[in-house]
Amino acid sequence: MTSRIAVLPGDGIGPEIVEQAVRVLRALDLDLELAEAPVGGAAYAAKGHPLPEDTLALARQSDAVLFGAVGDWKYDHLERALRPEQAVLGLRKALGLFANLRPAILYPELANASSLKPEVVAGLDILIVRELTGDIYFGQPRGVRTLEDGPFAGERQGYDTMHYAETEIRRIAHVAFQAAARRQGRLCSVDKANVLETSQFWRDIVTDVAREYPKVELSHMYVDNAAMQLVRAPKAFDVVVTGNLFGDILSDEAAMLTGSIGMLPSASLNASRQGLYEPSHGSAPDIAGQNVANPLATILSAAMMLRYSLDAPAAADRIEAAVQAVLAQGLRTADIFEAGTTRVSTSEMGDAVLKAL
Amino acid sequence: MTSRIAVLPGDGIGPEIVEQAVRVLRALDLDLELAEAPVGGAAYAAKGHPLPEDTLALARQSDAVLFGAVGDWKYDHLERALRPEQAVLGLRKALGLFANLRPAILYPELANASSLKPEVVAGLDILIVRELTGDIYFGQPRGVRTLEDGPFAGERQGYDTMHYAETEIRRIAHVAFQAAARRQGRLCSVDKANVLETSQFWRDIVTDVAREYPKVELSHMYVDNAAMQLVRAPKAFDVVVTGNLFGDILSDEAAMLTGSIGMLPSASLNASRQGLYEPSHGSAPDIAGQNVANPLATILSAAMMLRYSLDAPAAADRIEAAVQAVLAQGLRTADIFEAGTTRVSTSEMGDAVLKAL
Ligand SMILES: CC(C)[C@H](C(=O)O)[C@@H](O)C(=O)O
Ligand SMILES: CC(C)[C@H](C(=O)O)[C@@H](O)C(=O)O
Repeated sequence: MTSRIAVLPGDGIGPEIVEQAVRVLRALDLDLELAEAPVGGAAYAAKGHPLPEDTLALARQSDAVLFGAVGDWKYDHLERALRPEQAVLGLRKALGLFANLRPAILYPELANASSLKPEVVAGLDILIVRELTGDIYFGQPRGVRTLEDGPFAGERQGYDTMHYAETEIRRIAHVAFQAAARRQGRLCSVDKANVLETSQFWRDIVTDVAREYPKVELSHMYVDNAAMQLVRAPKAFDVVVTGNLFGDILSDEAAMLTGSIGMLPSASLNASRQGLYEPSHGSAPDIAGQNVANPLATILSAAMMLRYSLDAPAAADRIEAAVQAVLAQGLRTADIFEAGTTRVSTSEMGDAVLKAL
Repeated sequence: MTSRIAVLPGDGIGPEIVEQAVRVLRALDLDLELAEAPVGGAAYAAKGHPLPEDTLALARQSDAVLFGAVGDWKYDHLERALRPEQAVLGLRKALGLFANLRPAILYPELANASSLKPEVVAGLDILIVRELTGDIYFGQPRGVRTLEDGPFAGERQGYDTMHYAETEIRRIAHVAFQAAARRQGRLCSVDKANVLETSQFWRDIVTDVAREYPKVELSHMYVDNAAMQLVRAPKAFDVVVTGNLFGDILSDEAAMLTGSIGMLPSASLNASRQGLYEPSHGSAPDIAGQNVANPLATILSAAMMLRYSLDAPAAADRIEAAVQAVLAQGLRTADIFEAGTTRVSTSEMGDAVLKAL
């Protein structure tokens, strides 16, 4: 059966890194049908909206979306609804991609890239499971209103609503417990239950789901403490599960611990295992079009796609082994270059992965 | 004129570290009137509430509050309203302590304590200015409700409200701009304006306040990026201003960059410069009563108190110089001990600071 992949390159370095991932996918001898569509600022420029209807329709009909990156300073002046990031939020919501899997892995060859001491991060392998379609990201009501009473009566107030329904918490908890069961069997749920009602509710539901996973060891941690422990002793974590907002912050912090965010893929899945796959890094408009960006996070995202959405784990393994091989050969794009290694361009890195496949 | 100080030792290591700070204050030959009251779990145990009326009244009548720490696993089973942390939230709200100043400073002598590479953190000196009485911490409505319609109709949902009124943003922005003007002149405002209405409003108001401080360079950063940049290149920051929730996370992350959170004081001020002063670390019930905790963060909090609330900057300087001196002498409590230094107890550290005064 043909697997359909929507290819959405986006802005900045998106097109050039996605190009390399597409080359890798095509080299695998799988029955894939790839169709490309504009997204983000590029789509706004071409069609007046960051997530045009055709692009969304293509994504809906596909088994998986390979996504580059969106965002460019050029679009900063636009009203929020038209900015590139809205495409990301729109796709997540429209496809129900509630489960964001963000590995933070430090490859032994890249240990020096980290701003942390090698002994603190060597061998780091954390999985952050972030809820992606709920929380304060989509909560209503939200806006700016004029206050009618209280200490600030007569002035404007910006406001948003954080919330989580029971089902939303249960389903992401199941994803996280299952991931932990396949790994070291430790799950840390992060919240702010000492302050937030949403968090206390989250904690209660996660605790309830835990009864179905007696072999997974569940702990709870406040988000401020988690932000500290990630810096102090990141290897103490195995799987972390948290809401959309805390997950946004902690997954980026965890990624940066590796110092090589150009290496980190991500997957965003819905209940039917349809998924969006994208590098954890951004669109880096400052280096766009120069053939210097690191395509490996996108290539590894394609591997996650094969594993989670296309049921082709062997092909995923092949890609991951090829990436390991090029690192072992000492090939490095500018972002991870250090003395004693060989600096290569975006396309040369793609060539090397193809050869290593 | 006599300055009145409410001394609230609290739980865990609170009493023993506060005791050392009180000794230091008494040694200064200032006209201080110190009165002690229970708070947190200790107050719950003694009087049935973490913030008894008498304690709150004492705090209100004082020029400043010297606070130890609250919290202990013993009280985890209590309903939220009776848990030790509620004392902190209650004091902040009752006294209107909207401006939380949290320095993250790495003392050269303690550079090894950090989990980051020395070159990344040597000389670190960031000030996080966290808004402390608004945001989702106190926003209404909040609770758990049963949904009547929508995709999760019939089930329970936990919810909270994030909000900021114009005045709340303006006043914390002024504090931050003024602090930046006295330092390197750079202020980074952290928000999530690409997703939250509250944040977009925050950004607009901070930008407006900036017009009154032409000499301070203002930048804006998303909170996820800030969490990354703190790990990657923390010295790039001078002053950071942010809301209550993001400030909770980022100030703890920044503190942990130093690896010596036992050294970091904090101040929480209201509009009339009344303030609450406490160490940035917690109550550490696991080592309570053993005379091993580090009293320096509390002693340095007393110095901040003299500077910000009691208008005694020379006395503050004396305390800070004394702390520098004991570090230079190689004295270390267990948390910052390393080979080649002299390990001392809580009270011995207090003795040494007194001697160095
Ligand atoms: C672009 C932005 C809306 C998005 C988010 O906050 O989720 C991004 O930071 C991410 O983590 O994918
Ligand atoms: C104890 C808790 C309510 C508090 C907070 O979240 O503000 C603490 O983490 C802090 O930062 O002082």
